Amino acid sequence: MTDSTVRVRDLDESELLARIFPLLPTGDAVDVGPGDDAAVVRAPDGRVVVSTDVLVEDRHFRRSWSTGFDVGRRAAAQNLADIAAMGARPTSLVVSLVVPGDLPVDWVTGLARGLADAATPAGATVVGGDLSGGDEIVVAVTVHGDLDGRAPVLRSGAQPGDVVAHAGVLGRSAAGLALLASGAASGQHGAPGARGPVAPFVAAYLRPEPPLPGGPAAAAAGASAMLDVSDGLLRDAGRLARASGVTVDLTGGRLSGDVSALLPAAVELAVVSEDVDGWQQARRWVLSGGEDHGLLATFPAEVADHGLPAGFREIGEVRTPVDDGPQVLLDGEEPDVPQGWDHFRS
Amino acid sequence: MTDSTVRVRDLDESELLARIFPLLPTGDAVDVGPGDDAAVVRAPDGRVVVSTDVLVEDRHFRRSWSTGFDVGRRAAAQNLADIAAMGARPTSLVVSLVVPGDLPVDWVTGLARGLADAATPAGATVVGGDLSGGDEIVVAVTVHGDLDGRAPVLRSGAQPGDVVAHAGVLGRSAAGLALLASGAASGQHGAPGARGPVAPFVAAYLRPEPPLPGGPAAAAAGASAMLDVSDGLLRDAGRLARASGVTVDLTGGRLSGDVSALLPAAVELAVVSEDVDGWQQARRWVLSGGEDHGLLATFPAEVADHGLPAGFREIGEVRTPVDDGPQVLLDGEEPDVPQGWDHFRS
Repeated sequence: MTDSTVRVRDLDESELLARIFPLLPTGDAVDVGPGDDAAVVRAPDGRVVVSTDVLVEDRHFRRSWSTGFDVGRRAAAQNLADIAAMGARPTSLVVSLVVPGDLPVDWVTGLARGLADAATPAGATVVGGDLSGGDEIVVAVTVHGDLDGRAPVLRSGAQPGDVVAHAGVLGRSAAGLALLASGAASGQHGAPGARGPVAPFVAAYLRPEPPLPGGPAAAAAGASAMLDVSDGLLRDAGRLARASGVTVDLTGGRLSGDVSALLPAAVELAVVSEDVDGWQQARRWVLSGGEDHGLLATFPAEVADHGLPAGFREIGEVRTPVDDGPQVLLDGEEPDVPQGWDHFRS
Repeated sequence: MTDSTVRVRDLDESELLARIFPLLPTGDAVDVGPGDDAAVVRAPDGRVVVSTDVLVEDRHFRRSWSTGFDVGRRAAAQNLADIAAMGARPTSLVVSLVVPGDLPVDWVTGLARGLADAATPAGATVVGGDLSGGDEIVVAVTVHGDLDGRAPVLRSGAQPGDVVAHAGVLGRSAAGLALLASGAASGQHGAPGARGPVAPFVAAYLRPEPPLPGGPAAAAAGASAMLDVSDGLLRDAGRLARASGVTVDLTGGRLSGDVSALLPAAVELAVVSEDVDGWQQARRWVLSGGEDHGLLATFPAEVADHGLPAGFREIGEVRTPVDDGPQVLLDGEEPDVPQGWDHFRS
């Protein structure tokens, strides 16, 4: 039998692990890798940065759109982005995986390859995991990072007068999701086969590429606050604003290039849904679309005057809050689009 | 509405988190707790020990037997045991939780209390987590520990001539599970209400208490190998034997006290199942029962001569493997009972 016909229930846990472990390269930071009761990872800073994120089938991904490789890449990428958003360098991750018995083993080994594919370039290693049967696929990843002696960059450090900056893409993942959901990218079996103008958007949704080196670079440059944009620019900017007790005022004109870049996706979507205003649709993706995993950071003006770290560009400024308290504004006014979504309720 | 009538779907993620965070005490080792992109935990040793374990509803627990508190305690305890088994001191844990929308919020807050209840006495803090909706409850815990300058105790270090020792209970959890499954402990709504001779066994299954201080104590005393007994004494001793390339020979006479201690459970079970031989049943629980999360360790004879660390008692010896290669024996012979179970297939 090949792995595409072998199903998870055909193997016991140790047999399945024996197929997974060889797919996970070890790294310099690992003293003890998978196979013992626990792994041992170096933490030279003397502190360890830790974050965990869970993906659930049909809530965060669909098997008809995403391969196991895609899900592995995405699970790793969104966790690695949380580490970068603290200003840290990723070192290692562990994975708890719940799989139905009829899942092809190929899907699971694809997931392992996807995890390694996202983690390895970031300098991180998969050091352990746990497997269980279950009714639906659940991928829970915990990732660790090292601060290399720097202070962590929290959400709460923004000061009035700071420059608001962003690294990464905005709205691209939401555009890809909309194309997949509409059927405009259908019959293409996900990004590997996607062709034409929809391909880069679908790829951005299926396999986001957070600007991971931007995190430590922002910290080294003196970022006052930072977070990962996972639930939409407005929603996450609002979190930073409330945590810091400031108002974040975004500059619409600085986002017009992001909107323009999404017009091809909006045009494709208009073919299947004629009541779409392309520019407004693209603008909503930029302001409210989730899962791009870019980095939103604030920098003191004197840092910005000397040039923002590579990958960051200015998109607004931090102000003293007025009567309504800390909030996010767009060109000085309350934004006219929804502020993002809540995965938990959907 | 009280929390017993409020269901998860009635709250959004931030509202649910707002009920959970106050239940999680912070600890000395935590620089940044829940609420930012990631937590920051001190790792004074310069290495961090990491393990992850997942519990799935109706595979690892049943809601009709276990409260949310019980599941939280168990999830924490079995993860903490993996850290202890490396000779490390637990410092922190993170939790990814998948919950159906109709789950009472009480269950979730109970889980948080249970996690804290197991972690706090061990010196560990819940520093972060993630929540998602899903069809079945999944609790994925990742736990971290510090080695305090010691080398990690691996499974692979046992040497012929070493003494085999165990800390904790053997078979007690399996006896409790059998009582619950048989109905002999039914109508008692789990351990809080369990009365009479079955109570301690049911409690051992629902809320195991691994001998966590034994891990660092064994490491400090010079243990040559160690692991957490999660899948049964024979099965886990077999893992240690193969990893070390040795034969582990258990001494039946040294386990007879463990067997005797389970006789009350076997007697209760005989009431509902007359074809049970009490002693044989109890002996199987001791040799093959899982989820007690005791510590199995090997010590050089000269260490044992000066007295094993508190909580450990000798149960066998390490031998040079003969023709059949590394294996586990009982009084020099191949054990006559099954070697434990595989959660993944069941």
